[in-house]
Amino acid sequence: MSEEIAMPESLVDVLHELIVATRILANEKVLDAFGHVSVRHPHNPQRYFIPRHRAPELAEMSDLVELDLNSQPVKPTEFRLYSERVIHGEIYKARPEVNAVCHHHSHAVLPFAISGQALVPVFHLPAVIGHVPFWDQRDEFGDTNMLVVKPEEGASLARALGPHWMVLMRRHGATVVGLSLRELTFRTVFGCDNAKLQSQAMAHGHVDALSPGEIKLSSEHSVRPPSTNRAWDYWVRQVEKAGLMPPKNGSKTGAAANKRAKSRTAATSRRKTRPKARR
Amino acid sequence: MSEEIAMPESLVDVLHELIVATRILANEKVLDAFGHVSVRHPHNPQRYFIPRHRAPELAEMSDLVELDLNSQPVKPTEFRLYSERVIHGEIYKARPEVNAVCHHHSHAVLPFAISGQALVPVFHLPAVIGHVPFWDQRDEFGDTNMLVVKPEEGASLARALGPHWMVLMRRHGATVVGLSLRELTFRTVFGCDNAKLQSQAMAHGHVDALSPGEIKLSSEHSVRPPSTNRAWDYWVRQVEKAGLMPPKNGSKTGAAANKRAKSRTAATSRRKTRPKARR
Amino acid sequence: MSEEIAMPESLVDVLHELIVATRILANEKVLDAFGHVSVRHPHNPQRYFIPRHRAPELAEMSDLVELDLNSQPVKPTEFRLYSERVIHGEIYKARPEVNAVCHHHSHAVLPFAISGQALVPVFHLPAVIGHVPFWDQRDEFGDTNMLVVKPEEGASLARALGPHWMVLMRRHGATVVGLSLRELTFRTVFGCDNAKLQSQAMAHGHVDALSPGEIKLSSEHSVRPPSTNRAWDYWVRQVEKAGLMPPKNGSKTGAAANKRAKSRTAATSRRKTRPKARR
Amino acid sequence: MSEEIAMPESLVDVLHELIVATRILANEKVLDAFGHVSVRHPHNPQRYFIPRHRAPELAEMSDLVELDLNSQPVKPTEFRLYSERVIHGEIYKARPEVNAVCHHHSHAVLPFAISGQALVPVFHLPAVIGHVPFWDQRDEFGDTNMLVVKPEEGASLARALGPHWMVLMRRHGATVVGLSLRELTFRTVFGCDNAKLQSQAMAHGHVDALSPGEIKLSSEHSVRPPSTNRAWDYWVRQVEKAGLMPPKNGSKTGAAANKRAKSRTAATSRRKTRPKARR
Repeated sequence: MSEEIAMPESLVDVLHELIVATRILANEKVLDAFGHVSVRHPHNPQRYFIPRHRAPELAEMSDLVELDLNSQPVKPTEFRLYSERVIHGEIYKARPEVNAVCHHHSHAVLPFAISGQALVPVFHLPAVIGHVPFWDQRDEFGDTNMLVVKPEEGASLARALGPHWMVLMRRHGATVVGLSLRELTFRTVFGCDNAKLQSQAMAHGHVDALSPGEIKLSSEHSVRPPSTNRAWDYWVRQVEKAGLMPPKNGSKTGAAANKRAKSRTAATSRRKTRPKARR
Repeated sequence: MSEEIAMPESLVDVLHELIVATRILANEKVLDAFGHVSVRHPHNPQRYFIPRHRAPELAEMSDLVELDLNSQPVKPTEFRLYSERVIHGEIYKARPEVNAVCHHHSHAVLPFAISGQALVPVFHLPAVIGHVPFWDQRDEFGDTNMLVVKPEEGASLARALGPHWMVLMRRHGATVVGLSLRELTFRTVFGCDNAKLQSQAMAHGHVDALSPGEIKLSSEHSVRPPSTNRAWDYWVRQVEKAGLMPPKNGSKTGAAANKRAKSRTAATSRRKTRPKARR
Repeated sequence: MSEEIAMPESLVDVLHELIVATRILANEKVLDAFGHVSVRHPHNPQRYFIPRHRAPELAEMSDLVELDLNSQPVKPTEFRLYSERVIHGEIYKARPEVNAVCHHHSHAVLPFAISGQALVPVFHLPAVIGHVPFWDQRDEFGDTNMLVVKPEEGASLARALGPHWMVLMRRHGATVVGLSLRELTFRTVFGCDNAKLQSQAMAHGHVDALSPGEIKLSSEHSVRPPSTNRAWDYWVRQVEKAGLMPPKNGSKTGAAANKRAKSRTAATSRRKTRPKARR
Repeated sequence: MSEEIAMPESLVDVLHELIVATRILANEKVLDAFGHVSVRHPHNPQRYFIPRHRAPELAEMSDLVELDLNSQPVKPTEFRLYSERVIHGEIYKARPEVNAVCHHHSHAVLPFAISGQALVPVFHLPAVIGHVPFWDQRDEFGDTNMLVVKPEEGASLARALGPHWMVLMRRHGATVVGLSLRELTFRTVFGCDNAKLQSQAMAHGHVDALSPGEIKLSSEHSVRPPSTNRAWDYWVRQVEKAGLMPPKNGSKTGAAANKRAKSRTAATSRRKTRPKARR
């Protein structure tokens, strides 16, 4: 957090989980230099947290900024902000139950955003993506620099998403939402897995998608904590192996910190650190 | 083992080999957060061992539970169990000669499970997969959450497997069996290699499969110990290089243990450790 | 630098950035044993710097040579030089505004150089490649060893590039140019990403390219420092994680140096080192 | 060497280079648990060296055995030998100028061995593969276990290879030959690169191969030491980064040795070690 104020431990936990989710999605090659993940403020639904403008793998807790739903900083900040943060704000406005948003350009889903082929659940785990609508910025706004920068562009994308959980953005990428960071991470990674596998099945000449009933029943099962936590623990281990586990006290995660992280046990690195008041 | 009892060394060896096989299949990207491997009890064919509900790469010897062939724990346990463990129990019931089972969602074979294209041996090493039948849970059970949870679902899958060694599960994954853990590991990895290569040959426009005589003769050669051990030693080395070799005394393999493992010689890490009674 | 003379710090910075860009492109798998990157002399537009003949990942600051625009060394050198250095010299002659050039055989773009399919921007970030012309050495020079060795071969390639930023070389590879090393790196990496994704969309059966207006607007946005620096910082972090960050004082980056680099913090390893006179 | 005799340093150098070439091909994912590389005895053209039966990445200098051209050990050995070693012996018989042979099942070339599509040079570096004939063991020997075990099977393969440098083995893999270990390594790796890229260009719908003149001229250039050494140095660096560089004194390269290797400088690890007499 850029603000030097005391935070309740639950907020620290949420913000740490936001950075962990971001590192997971970078480590799983969903995010690269671009893309971003945000979380709604756990105590104030009119606000959300997102890192300042930098590659998501490099974002630390100290890079997080608190924005209102118009995507304006709650307190003055010298940080440069993501120009596309309205994606997050406009979706939080339109979908009160959504608490986490990821915008990415994964190589798994971009072929669908380029070819216009519909993405459909092809095995049980990604049933959580459900129906995936398309959005083409050109339809409403004509030729642009293709970034979702204006509030009306974000609102248009949120309308295209509608009541669904993932939207493909033509010639651009995808945006995924979840009730929680762990559900979001699960849906984002398995949405990418589904895309890779559907592309391969298409090359085989036939795609056998889940039936509506299978999508409903599989999805209900997969979003429950036993599934999302089992996957989360696995992805956290991969982040730990890569030396990317973020500390909780907001200090930098540079090479030295990574080195320390590597020599700690997994159990220790998950230990909760008390937030320091007035640091 | 969760039970705090003395085990004969041969049992410790088998259980350690189960964890090694699991780590191999995780390291070779056959298993991710999901999937599981089991082994039949070497002294009691009515029982088998499988990890508790967690990502296979994270499973330790201390996570193993002993189940009967109805897939119920032999002793009360507080561990959460895999909901799909009936896959293992029902196959052990139907196939007395089978001693090891792996269920996975490998990205290599899933395109076949999605497209319905038949998987056939396309080079000599994977001849060990033989004929690979399909099973579609929907055929017998209609719309489900697609998990093989009920005993009758496991029994149906075992019937589809029949006398074969691998079965493709539509829109779900695959299950592979072996006479031993090493044979199972060989068949599972080369089954995935075969799938990847067959997909590529299909993209070339023609697939030249092995003849029935070639399948029989190649398979007989490949399942013999010189082949399976040569491959096993190679995969173990990869596991060692990744810092994933499990200790034999049942302690955790967290980051600290991995670090120790990395600084031991390969020879030492394969040294047999005497099981401790009453630990 | 092979010359043992004092260099102004700004020149050291540029040459260090050249080696960093080269390591980035090696680490991102654009370059392998072959390919090369050069930069125009920041104070003398009639000269440029390029490593001696060796795999780009292995090139150190002490391997750099200063060439004139006829690609001849400014001072006698015992170093073997790249036979294809005329690619760089002839482009610097023809395009005064270009300050950095990369020639590569990336597996992403070679399929286009082999199939003859046109490479077109398919999402916003690679809009910076713009129109990508083809050049076939055979058209003008008949059967050759396919290396661009003679000045007239380099000049022919520069004519094919024309006012554009990337040119595909049939049955050979690609050459990319930029106003700066960071812009060049951005265009080279995202040009490869575009190629991978376009290939996949082609396999889907349809490619929806950016409109001319979208290419112009997206490209103008992406070449600005906030975008190129954000990506640069991400790629530098990947180079640091791989232990490949080059020191600035011209000493070797062998295994020992890499080891030291790994144990330094990222911040420290980016610290500017004063060039030593008469070293 | 299994024989405990003094060796002239030049022989040690050749045998060390054999192990380095093997590690390179393992590290570049040409070889996995299977496949093998051999070198002709530098002083006695009627003999060749090849590791005992084990995964090539694991082979040490102490695993090498000396065979005659009938592929029988020159001295009694308790080592298990590769059953397919006749591939090497029969080619050395038929091709006196060949000094190094590699047999592999690379995932890059197997699609061609399965589909029967002709492999042709598609960019300048792999021109060194030239014309690549097919061999189908079934044509002459009917249904077999598909291993090249009998001398007549090896001789048949050598006849199919004829005066060429690479032969595709239907439903099996490939065999590549060279005048030296470095030329062999260059041809093997770039043969695989060519295969991957040709497969991708085929998916684009068109393959523009090198003309016969381009193949001749490019090939003559690439097999010269400046090219093969530049690539060799790059691949050696990758082997060093992976901790796989073999020591020259014949001791094991286990995890502990790898660790030492990692902490030595690259320069030191390439230092020549004097062979010990009577070790």
